[in-house]
Amino acid sequence: VKLIQELIVIDPKSDIPIYLQIANAFSLSIRQGRLRKGLRIPGSRETARLLNVNRMTVVAAYSELEAQGWLEMIPRKGAFVRTSLPVLAPKQLSEIQSFPKTPETTGFPFNTKKAIPFNTSRSLQVEKLIFNDGFPDVRIAPIGSLIRAMRRLLYLPSFSKSLVYGNAQGTPYLRETLSVFLNDTRGMPVASENILITKGAQMGLYIAASIILKPGDHVIVGQPGYVTATLTFQQLGAIIHTIPVDDSGIDMDKVEKLCQRKKIKLVYVIPHHHNPTTVTLIPERRMRLLELAKKNKFAILEDDYDYDFHYTSKPIMPMASMDNSGNVIYIGTYTKTLAPAIRFGFMVAPASFIHTATQVRKSIDTQGDTLMENAIAELHRDGTITRHIKKSVKLYKERRDNLCMLLQTSLNSHITFKIPDGGMSIWAKFNTADLHEVSKIAEVNGLLIGNGKIYDSPTVKYNSVRIGFASLNFAEQEKAVDILVKSVHESGKHHLESK
Amino acid sequence: VKLIQELIVIDPKSDIPIYLQIANAFSLSIRQGRLRKGLRIPGSRETARLLNVNRMTVVAAYSELEAQGWLEMIPRKGAFVRTSLPVLAPKQLSEIQSFPKTPETTGFPFNTKKAIPFNTSRSLQVEKLIFNDGFPDVRIAPIGSLIRAMRRLLYLPSFSKSLVYGNAQGTPYLRETLSVFLNDTRGMPVASENILITKGAQMGLYIAASIILKPGDHVIVGQPGYVTATLTFQQLGAIIHTIPVDDSGIDMDKVEKLCQRKKIKLVYVIPHHHNPTTVTLIPERRMRLLELAKKNKFAILEDDYDYDFHYTSKPIMPMASMDNSGNVIYIGTYTKTLAPAIRFGFMVAPASFIHTATQVRKSIDTQGDTLMENAIAELHRDGTITRHIKKSVKLYKERRDNLCMLLQTSLNSHITFKIPDGGMSIWAKFNTADLHEVSKIAEVNGLLIGNGKIYDSPTVKYNSVRIGFASLNFAEQEKAVDILVKSVHESGKHHLESK
Repeated sequence: VKLIQELIVIDPKSDIPIYLQIANAFSLSIRQGRLRKGLRIPGSRETARLLNVNRMTVVAAYSELEAQGWLEMIPRKGAFVRTSLPVLAPKQLSEIQSFPKTPETTGFPFNTKKAIPFNTSRSLQVEKLIFNDGFPDVRIAPIGSLIRAMRRLLYLPSFSKSLVYGNAQGTPYLRETLSVFLNDTRGMPVASENILITKGAQMGLYIAASIILKPGDHVIVGQPGYVTATLTFQQLGAIIHTIPVDDSGIDMDKVEKLCQRKKIKLVYVIPHHHNPTTVTLIPERRMRLLELAKKNKFAILEDDYDYDFHYTSKPIMPMASMDNSGNVIYIGTYTKTLAPAIRFGFMVAPASFIHTATQVRKSIDTQGDTLMENAIAELHRDGTITRHIKKSVKLYKERRDNLCMLLQTSLNSHITFKIPDGGMSIWAKFNTADLHEVSKIAEVNGLLIGNGKIYDSPTVKYNSVRIGFASLNFAEQEKAVDILVKSVHESGKHHLESK
Repeated sequence: VKLIQELIVIDPKSDIPIYLQIANAFSLSIRQGRLRKGLRIPGSRETARLLNVNRMTVVAAYSELEAQGWLEMIPRKGAFVRTSLPVLAPKQLSEIQSFPKTPETTGFPFNTKKAIPFNTSRSLQVEKLIFNDGFPDVRIAPIGSLIRAMRRLLYLPSFSKSLVYGNAQGTPYLRETLSVFLNDTRGMPVASENILITKGAQMGLYIAASIILKPGDHVIVGQPGYVTATLTFQQLGAIIHTIPVDDSGIDMDKVEKLCQRKKIKLVYVIPHHHNPTTVTLIPERRMRLLELAKKNKFAILEDDYDYDFHYTSKPIMPMASMDNSGNVIYIGTYTKTLAPAIRFGFMVAPASFIHTATQVRKSIDTQGDTLMENAIAELHRDGTITRHIKKSVKLYKERRDNLCMLLQTSLNSHITFKIPDGGMSIWAKFNTADLHEVSKIAEVNGLLIGNGKIYDSPTVKYNSVRIGFASLNFAEQEKAVDILVKSVHESGKHHLESK
């Protein structure tokens, strides 16, 4: 039974206790059919010798396997792989074939139109060079600190309760802390009752829209604009009106005119670094939008996801900090400060609205992860978040400058862009090449870059894309630009050849 | 300037570097107005002496404060609290008063009916004795292991990408692992394409219902039943039909009859330990429901949140494991295995349904926390979850038996209950006392217990409540029962007195 040594490989450095490594290896082999039912397995003494471990370790492994129902111990005979494996034990291959497989489709109708048709759903968790949509560099994110804070809180008596059901609005600790942060950084006169902790900005957007909008309601968004938001409003049955975005943000004359013709319920704005064009809504237009909202009783959904990342001047005060008539729902996120996959964000609004939003959140996912919420509060309190933002802003500014320089010198008249005041991407228009083609060729050459189709309207083809600069260091930027340049040239040749 | 020693208390054991502790204490004092604008603060040498730290530490603190904009360094004069604090710096009290406060109510209409009117929203994160609804004991939960797994993955090159945007359906690693677990533990022939990772069972319920139901659609639930589910369906505009639940689960004759009269779109069942009555749906009725679903083309929403916790026999195979016509949407959760505040669950369904559900999830919160999802997968792989379930089942069985014994001997004919086969609570009917009154008196006496009102229908008053046994050890159970007995007796006296 030398087989044992083949089947069981012990990793002394693993966090898994050795007896469990042995037990797991045995149960896996039984499930895979490599140790057949009824087989007598070597005694603990022999196995211990073969594996070069203490006999008591093997005894512990066997008793775990017996408890799990894999082995049976027959007195004076030894340990055997159970012949009557548990009813719900894994099936043999032959059994599986006669067993019903989960059907491909449903036996009942359902509303496939509910699916948000956002098609750029590819995961970025790949080992490839990516010009993303404008995401942070997770390599510098203080996630180690976040995990340490979780561990510390876990063993603190005053926080030990934070694993049971808590407050759906978010933990009081995080809301208190965040209200101070919002007061300090953006002059927002909020208390913890004005805050709902969400999973990223998107949940805030979804909840706010689902409370404000009924099917047939009129919504204003910028054009070009943030596609996911538009699709979320459409999913709720809203009628979308697009208003052009120029270098100072959404055109307020056009908003005002539309308000005279339609009963507008909601205006969606990204005040800093508008997605996709990266422009900032100027103070004058902010004031004007507030007046229009007050007069026409519509809600402003202020999606300030990028507030903390402004490079050339101080960021502009949010409309939420100047709103004295309760027309602004403010949305922010930690996904840009920490990491996209650490899903925390917040909604700020009048308390009556937050109350309804909290109840809606209960029906969606009951509540948030309170241990992690408290850990984020800790990172505020010990200064980690503020320091990380400072550090990121410095780094991303350098990366912005470097990428702009690289693009300018190597693509020259092939593309047009303005240096963005903040955010994490450049909005670049391709002048000579077809972006769709460039994107396809670049992927073959080892670089992922969007093809810009999602921004196009039926009447306007922008041939433009967001080029994220924050997540790539100088060396990566250089490599990515090289591939992009090559791809632009190849796409040109391809054209000539096909002519 | 002895003040420095009062304002700054250094904690040598803290994780925060000392220079930052000093900087944070200074900025707090400035914000609180204890160090007024323009004040000259002691030089680094003097401060270092006063605080008994190295001078370079103070220099680092001052330079941090200068960078943050709290201090200004005037050459040859020293460090001063900035007179022109940043535009967005906190306001003085007098300024705050002239500053707009966030309004109480909104300046636009919104749909308050969207709020799920579930009123038992009190947080359980309190230092009180609680007979909860049937929740696990988080004191034994392997959260330390979960956090360790997160940390390990964070520094593993192959997982370093899991902080950027990933797969909204859940990480492939967790879905692969979970599909094996579901095959092994409940004979469900599923692949990772059949799984959507959610935030707890509630998100699965919400997403499934929002895809299947349109306003006016007919839904069947048990009576008494799980109130949150019913409210979620109502929120989506569904018409609710209640069918009595007896000792074997929902009455299938009545379901069949209703199907002849109404076009049923969805039947909601809790197959193990029905909430609130704790009964298990017997196999015969499961088969019958599957046939009815196939014939009438309705969806079965099988909410098996309590599957792993069965004490007297093996749990019964889910309907999802026998469904060959795609009528079952299966919902499970990790909140009972790990902790209510660690929000993970899963939906299992035909791939076409999971595709739509994933797109809906994108509009709700983009995706899950992928680092944590992968950490849960690790706890499956190293056997932690299986061991924890075994350990919990053993412990909760003892606690169930102990609490049943205590209630029987001390309340005798005052209450009636059946010993539940599994789950984490007892469904107890109060015979002599008014439960609403008992609940109020118990709270005064130091015990939280529900008043059972949420289970009542317009026609039936159950005077019953779920008494959770899993989260209390023997000593706590004894103390809680003592208070309950006392409260029952007091409620009786109160009655006599008021007569």
